[in-house]
Amino acid sequence: MTPCYHRNRMSVIDFLFGRPLASYEEQSESIDAAKGIPIFGLDALGSAAYGPEAALTLLIPLGLAGVHYIVPISISIIVLLAIVCFSYLQTIPAYPAGGGSYTVASENLGPNLGLLAAAALMIDYVLVVAVGISAGIGALISALPTWEPYTLPLCMGTLLIITVINLRGVSETGAIFLFPTYLFVGSLFGAIAIGLGKTILAGGHPMPVIAPHKLPAVTESAGLWLLLKSFSSGCTAMTGVEAVSNGVQAFREPRAKHAQITLATIIGILIVMLAGIAILCRAYHIGATPPGQSGYQSVLSQLVSAVTGRGWFYYTSIASVLIVLVLQANTAFADFPRVCRAVAQNGYLPRAFANRGRRLVYTHGIYALVILAGAILALFGGVTDRLIPLFAIGAFLAFTLSQAGMVLHWKRVGGRHARHSMFINGAGAIATAATTVVVMVSKFAEGAWVTVLMIPALVALMKNVRGHYDRLLNEISSKDPLPTSGFRAPVVVVPMDNWTLISQKALRFALTLSDEVIGVHVASSEEPSAIKEDWPRLVEQPARAAGLPVPKLEVLQSPYRYVIGPLLEFVLEVERRYQDRTIAVVMPSLVEAHWYHSFLHNQRAELLTALLLFRGGDRIVIVNIPWRSHVDS
Amino acid sequence: MTPCYHRNRMSVIDFLFGRPLASYEEQSESIDAAKGIPIFGLDALGSAAYGPEAALTLLIPLGLAGVHYIVPISISIIVLLAIVCFSYLQTIPAYPAGGGSYTVASENLGPNLGLLAAAALMIDYVLVVAVGISAGIGALISALPTWEPYTLPLCMGTLLIITVINLRGVSETGAIFLFPTYLFVGSLFGAIAIGLGKTILAGGHPMPVIAPHKLPAVTESAGLWLLLKSFSSGCTAMTGVEAVSNGVQAFREPRAKHAQITLATIIGILIVMLAGIAILCRAYHIGATPPGQSGYQSVLSQLVSAVTGRGWFYYTSIASVLIVLVLQANTAFADFPRVCRAVAQNGYLPRAFANRGRRLVYTHGIYALVILAGAILALFGGVTDRLIPLFAIGAFLAFTLSQAGMVLHWKRVGGRHARHSMFINGAGAIATAATTVVVMVSKFAEGAWVTVLMIPALVALMKNVRGHYDRLLNEISSKDPLPTSGFRAPVVVVPMDNWTLISQKALRFALTLSDEVIGVHVASSEEPSAIKEDWPRLVEQPARAAGLPVPKLEVLQSPYRYVIGPLLEFVLEVERRYQDRTIAVVMPSLVEAHWYHSFLHNQRAELLTALLLFRGGDRIVIVNIPWRSHVDS
Repeated sequence: MTPCYHRNRMSVIDFLFGRPLASYEEQSESIDAAKGIPIFGLDALGSAAYGPEAALTLLIPLGLAGVHYIVPISISIIVLLAIVCFSYLQTIPAYPAGGGSYTVASENLGPNLGLLAAAALMIDYVLVVAVGISAGIGALISALPTWEPYTLPLCMGTLLIITVINLRGVSETGAIFLFPTYLFVGSLFGAIAIGLGKTILAGGHPMPVIAPHKLPAVTESAGLWLLLKSFSSGCTAMTGVEAVSNGVQAFREPRAKHAQITLATIIGILIVMLAGIAILCRAYHIGATPPGQSGYQSVLSQLVSAVTGRGWFYYTSIASVLIVLVLQANTAFADFPRVCRAVAQNGYLPRAFANRGRRLVYTHGIYALVILAGAILALFGGVTDRLIPLFAIGAFLAFTLSQAGMVLHWKRVGGRHARHSMFINGAGAIATAATTVVVMVSKFAEGAWVTVLMIPALVALMKNVRGHYDRLLNEISSKDPLPTSGFRAPVVVVPMDNWTLISQKALRFALTLSDEVIGVHVASSEEPSAIKEDWPRLVEQPARAAGLPVPKLEVLQSPYRYVIGPLLEFVLEVERRYQDRTIAVVMPSLVEAHWYHSFLHNQRAELLTALLLFRGGDRIVIVNIPWRSHVDS
Repeated sequence: MTPCYHRNRMSVIDFLFGRPLASYEEQSESIDAAKGIPIFGLDALGSAAYGPEAALTLLIPLGLAGVHYIVPISISIIVLLAIVCFSYLQTIPAYPAGGGSYTVASENLGPNLGLLAAAALMIDYVLVVAVGISAGIGALISALPTWEPYTLPLCMGTLLIITVINLRGVSETGAIFLFPTYLFVGSLFGAIAIGLGKTILAGGHPMPVIAPHKLPAVTESAGLWLLLKSFSSGCTAMTGVEAVSNGVQAFREPRAKHAQITLATIIGILIVMLAGIAILCRAYHIGATPPGQSGYQSVLSQLVSAVTGRGWFYYTSIASVLIVLVLQANTAFADFPRVCRAVAQNGYLPRAFANRGRRLVYTHGIYALVILAGAILALFGGVTDRLIPLFAIGAFLAFTLSQAGMVLHWKRVGGRHARHSMFINGAGAIATAATTVVVMVSKFAEGAWVTVLMIPALVALMKNVRGHYDRLLNEISSKDPLPTSGFRAPVVVVPMDNWTLISQKALRFALTLSDEVIGVHVASSEEPSAIKEDWPRLVEQPARAAGLPVPKLEVLQSPYRYVIGPLLEFVLEVERRYQDRTIAVVMPSLVEAHWYHSFLHNQRAELLTALLLFRGGDRIVIVNIPWRSHVDS
């Protein structure tokens, strides 16, 4: 008989999160390029909404000159982006089963650098969620300035909604995100096209429909340090680019082909957007406004109003920015649990991260992501600008380790084609390594130190988890057959309160276990215990008459009115007395018909069980004899 | 062997709450009149600080005329107080073991009216704590007006401090409260004496040192309704008078004598204070200021500044008012748990209320009081004036039931002396019954309805608790000896995950219990289970060779990756299959060396145990076989 367990009730949970999916339903969860762009590209594309803004925020002190520097800074970022793109296009066919930075780094650079890549990625994904949501709410506040005081609650509510959506599983979320992504790309392309047209017609100096915020007075002159910091902030526009190579497995066959097309399209769109935004910011003299203050307005909001005014196009665009930024977190919701799962399968994270839940998603990974992202949003008040310095390091460190791993991969593979790929990946590794150092140094004091501390801490934690599992497995593993000698019935201890049907049930079960049964009663000096006097009549005589073993009774005096302490000490004493025996503590317990009735009774059985588990030795086992009360009110 | 359990470690808890006291140490906790006044009189005496103020607050709309009416209103209250005092002086010798309203009412008027008295008293004590603390903080704010925004946090912090003090036990708290009580009485008597002297010297129209708040313009004329409401509010000055008769048992021998002296002294002091405050308010034209608003100043604060100015005497007086009002709650901390205990001993409240804790105080009663008082403080923002309408009803209802009970008591006793006492108690009963009705009607709309609803709700709750205990006792009680027929070994089910030392330990214990052992393994379709193939080699063959019973293995398929559900269903199925057998579920469980390691493992054993307890039938017992891991990091 092999019974098969099926669920047959529809619950509130099913309604919210969808019915549970069986493992064999997994095949249908596959993705083509058109669906892959929103699912894996949201992160990369959404970055366009805060990357340029982050760079411009640092240029505020330069006044008008700042908006001129945005063009060379954006060009550097685009060049870097192109290098990384070519590099990842090499990775995809080499790792068709999913070439995430963790996999590539640990296979080619060893487990330690692999864990470093995993930690960097995890922290990056947490920040993607936090920055995506805070930037989306930033867009909302640009359109509706009176909502500014509710920034943090809005961020938290949004996080909750995304979480519920993602607990439903990948395929449906892909469908949900399709429309807003294309609306975002479409409206931004539209605004850029109109803006460029107007700029050309006006000979480079277009009149804004709605004037952007006045650029502030110059308070600093452009120095290399300031420009480096601005470049580092702008690099946040590149986060999310590795998502495709991570998720090759989710694509429809031929997987590598579909994944490559998806990646190239995403990066192409991103480059157009970054370039367009930079040119229009210079043409329309659009700078950033000080973040986290009232009067804040996002760069994209200023840009679209300058190009088209505040009509339906403006509100459609801002709505699509809001939705895309908020849903950007979705990339992290798809990828963070995947990384956790890969790490957990190698024993470096708790096993629960490797188990899929009812909807084939890795539920524990989602919980961990939500808790961490929620904590970071709360800590930084939901203000994007405060989060930016923590960001990008994780992403660029993972880029670097992944490309460096690919270099060693191609070296091992050998051959002409491999040498060509090795060169491309090597260029990628060097460029991203340099950027990592630049970001780390230029942002260290403003918050990057948090990330720099967290990554090694996370690596240490993961190594500890693995060590624990190894030691435990070493302790409990066995390949031997069942040992068949040394069987002996346990010594049984039965705590007795009063003489009731509950204690009789426990005592009767004890007598089926062993010939050696000890009843134990705690007497307080305040009330004499009737059970001691009645024991011969109630227990000893009938047991003797029936030829059963005769249970003894021990009475413990407790002047301090404690009950649990004396019982615990007594069981430990019995354990010492019977050196080579198992001690079975038979615990009568009352199970009430309703949970609220449990307030009417002490929880001694539960407490004593917990104490025996933690303080007892290896030979103590606990038998719970439940009495199920039918008293209903 | 009767081991005696003694504690021998000094813990943080000991430091905070004092070392535990054994029952035989109780004798030393006895009290004489000098100690009895602060312990049992704080409630009654502290009322002088808010009773007159509550009456004056309602007279605000009358302007200057209001401060004239305070004298006749105070006279009515003092007369009522004298009647009640004589009445309780009769009760004390009649109930030397403690004649609380609950005891007197339930012994003489039956259990239902007894519960009504208990409920009224409990609610009264909760309000004593809430009002005492809020009025004390009100005094503090009068002296330090800038602290007004922190009213509620100050109230809550104070509640916490009192709680810790009270958890240490009665005797020590008596010592702590001695000094501030006498300081309060002394400084108020001083202020009254100086004020009366100045008034007489000035021919009835003294000049205030610091002018009290200007009395507002007249907005209403004096009507009977307004005066009744003012009297009802003023009656809060009488709460706490029953404390002595409640606690006769705590006094030193001869108990009744010490208690009577204490009660008469307390009421005498209270009458002097009420009369003095009323006369001085009229002489100095001191009215109440609107409460819960900035600029609030308590009547006592105005009175002392008017009489003596704001020197050291003022600050000493206000400090003593603050401390006494705050410590007034102490009466309730001594008496609320006593009432709960008496009720719990009759089975009308959970048994835990009848158990004394480590310091011989009734810990659960203290917890209940703190939670209720904290909730009420939070609900009403810590503003005394909002709490006053809820107050007094409970106290007067308990007065009435207690005196009415005494009338029946004397009737039963008979004789000349009894007839005299019956007359006094009857007068008390009529006076307090009339006052109860007046307070209830005049305050109903402003908040008394809350109390009027809560008292019967509490009575219903207590009757339900008793009903539950009765039904449960009926279900489980037994006077018969242990039944000795029908013993049979259980059918044993052992959930097996993998073949480890943990599962071996469980399986070996199962084999000592019974010949019928069923191993059960849940297989997910994703990973094939090795245990099924190896079962003959690992278990069946060695068991057969050793002449042991041979355990079977059942494999459950679970396409939804659930483990607990299938196991639960399987055990319930086994229970159905073996109709007349006990089913023992032997649960291997991992006990980690450190609590935080439990995150690394699933909690399946705990969850399955809980589900089996709640969903299983009467024949399922659970055996917990702990594996204590020694892995330390």
